[in-house]
Amino acid sequence: MARILCLTLNPALDLTLNLEQLQPGAVNRCQGLSSRAAGKGLNVAQVLADLGHRVTVSGFLGAANPQAFERLFERRGFVDAFVRVPGETRSNIKLAERDGRVTDLNGPGPQVEAEHRAALLEALEPIVVGHDAIVVAGSLPQGVSPEWFAALLRRLQAFGLPLALDSSGAGLRAGLALSPWLVKPNEEELAEACGLEAFDSAALLTAALRLHRQGVEHVLLSRGAAGVCWLGPGFALQATPPSVRVASTVGAGDSLLAATLHGLLSGWPAERTLRLATAIAAQAVTQFGIGIHDREQLARLEAGVAVKTLA
Amino acid sequence: MARILCLTLNPALDLTLNLEQLQPGAVNRCQGLSSRAAGKGLNVAQVLADLGHRVTVSGFLGAANPQAFERLFERRGFVDAFVRVPGETRSNIKLAERDGRVTDLNGPGPQVEAEHRAALLEALEPIVVGHDAIVVAGSLPQGVSPEWFAALLRRLQAFGLPLALDSSGAGLRAGLALSPWLVKPNEEELAEACGLEAFDSAALLTAALRLHRQGVEHVLLSRGAAGVCWLGPGFALQATPPSVRVASTVGAGDSLLAATLHGLLSGWPAERTLRLATAIAAQAVTQFGIGIHDREQLARLEAGVAVKTLA
Repeated sequence: MARILCLTLNPALDLTLNLEQLQPGAVNRCQGLSSRAAGKGLNVAQVLADLGHRVTVSGFLGAANPQAFERLFERRGFVDAFVRVPGETRSNIKLAERDGRVTDLNGPGPQVEAEHRAALLEALEPIVVGHDAIVVAGSLPQGVSPEWFAALLRRLQAFGLPLALDSSGAGLRAGLALSPWLVKPNEEELAEACGLEAFDSAALLTAALRLHRQGVEHVLLSRGAAGVCWLGPGFALQATPPSVRVASTVGAGDSLLAATLHGLLSGWPAERTLRLATAIAAQAVTQFGIGIHDREQLARLEAGVAVKTLA
Repeated sequence: MARILCLTLNPALDLTLNLEQLQPGAVNRCQGLSSRAAGKGLNVAQVLADLGHRVTVSGFLGAANPQAFERLFERRGFVDAFVRVPGETRSNIKLAERDGRVTDLNGPGPQVEAEHRAALLEALEPIVVGHDAIVVAGSLPQGVSPEWFAALLRRLQAFGLPLALDSSGAGLRAGLALSPWLVKPNEEELAEACGLEAFDSAALLTAALRLHRQGVEHVLLSRGAAGVCWLGPGFALQATPPSVRVASTVGAGDSLLAATLHGLLSGWPAERTLRLATAIAAQAVTQFGIGIHDREQLARLEAGVAVKTLA
């Protein structure tokens, strides 16, 4: 069991509404509705908790609607090191129509001011020591520049702990310049961060290899149904999951990151780590919630993962 | 100052999202986002509080997300007699596009079971006495039939207090059969409850008069920008508000009801009551929130209300 610090600078309250067919401009009655405390770092934290780790969660949380988050922290036994900022944590609303079409409505979230950025550094400074690894995941909120984000990552790196980064766009680019210990982009994120025009496998692998050679010890490239490529110290692996019925792809990448971290911190061989991580990500796709709820299904999925060495 | 019991059986968390243009099937970034505890009875309660009354609020509230409501109750000094039921209070989401088009997404709300219905009666029974009037407003949640709703209204009537009802559809029809002291339908609600085919003024007034003759002491018909018709004991008045710039019509009818109740409980002449009530409803239309925030604007609006006797 390790102690892991998971940062989510821009968490969200995910709200899913199911409806027959979206009628713009009209009153739409929705059949099902559920909301949950979400955000990449919090998803990673939940899977880490299911894998037996103790987790501290931090970032910025809107002071006006923290309850769903606080309930999650309590239920999961997370240590709460989130800095509260005025306003509401953003809501990300998914409108799921019967024909499978999904419309996303993403709110802006609260404005993070200089005092809150300072408060986060102050909150983290005394607690980082005592953790075994740090995960920084998700997008940048309003008021957090890529430059400040890079400065935050540098301060965290200075503690000498393994630092895993899962972000996109400007956040990912700022982070890559610092060569974190692990990064987990998907194809689109890697292509965008590296300025690739197309998503072809060869170009993506070349870009991943370049990052690895520049000092990112673990480059974990998630490729949806095509599986995972992992470039690590002295190895390059590719895992292909068994095909599964897709319920929701939300949280699959976060599950992959959490489980890979689990294997690495447990000292497992890379192949064993990747097999489990790919299976946990595949399982995440079959369910709407986050976390490992069915160990038997997971064992079956794990048996179905094919791992091979990349040429 | 009176003590008023306001029932909202089906409250909602109103969430407004502003966006340029809704793109179905895509990720839509929303510029502004705010949520508020809402529901007709709670809107009435807030205006009553602004008019100096003490309010007890009750109904059914989802146990999973009561915080926005509890904050409202605390801020307004409401006595909280809501029964908590498992699940989330429904979210009513308004997508407001730049061109003015509004798309409503209304959630279903929690399921009210027999035990919760019994719990509401049990909660109300000892507290009704001690109030000066009762307001029952809004729609019926899942699990509350028109028959049970009628039985609830009958039990409340048995206390001998003035009972004001503002509902629609089956709830309004069930209530009208009991001739409550006051009803406040809008044109659409009255037409539907009375089985009218069209909204023409003559037919609506005839229907309102019929209700009054059948024993509804006060029939308050809200007609949007055209104003208000009020049939009371020995009088029939029509008020026309000054024209205002519309921000949101949400809460206008609730404001009208609250202010009329205020005048009636204060023993004011009907014309004075209607003038103020029409002005407060007009003011509600000019703002996004609920309540009386600008007394000077209200005085100007009141001076602009035209009240005449209906032929």
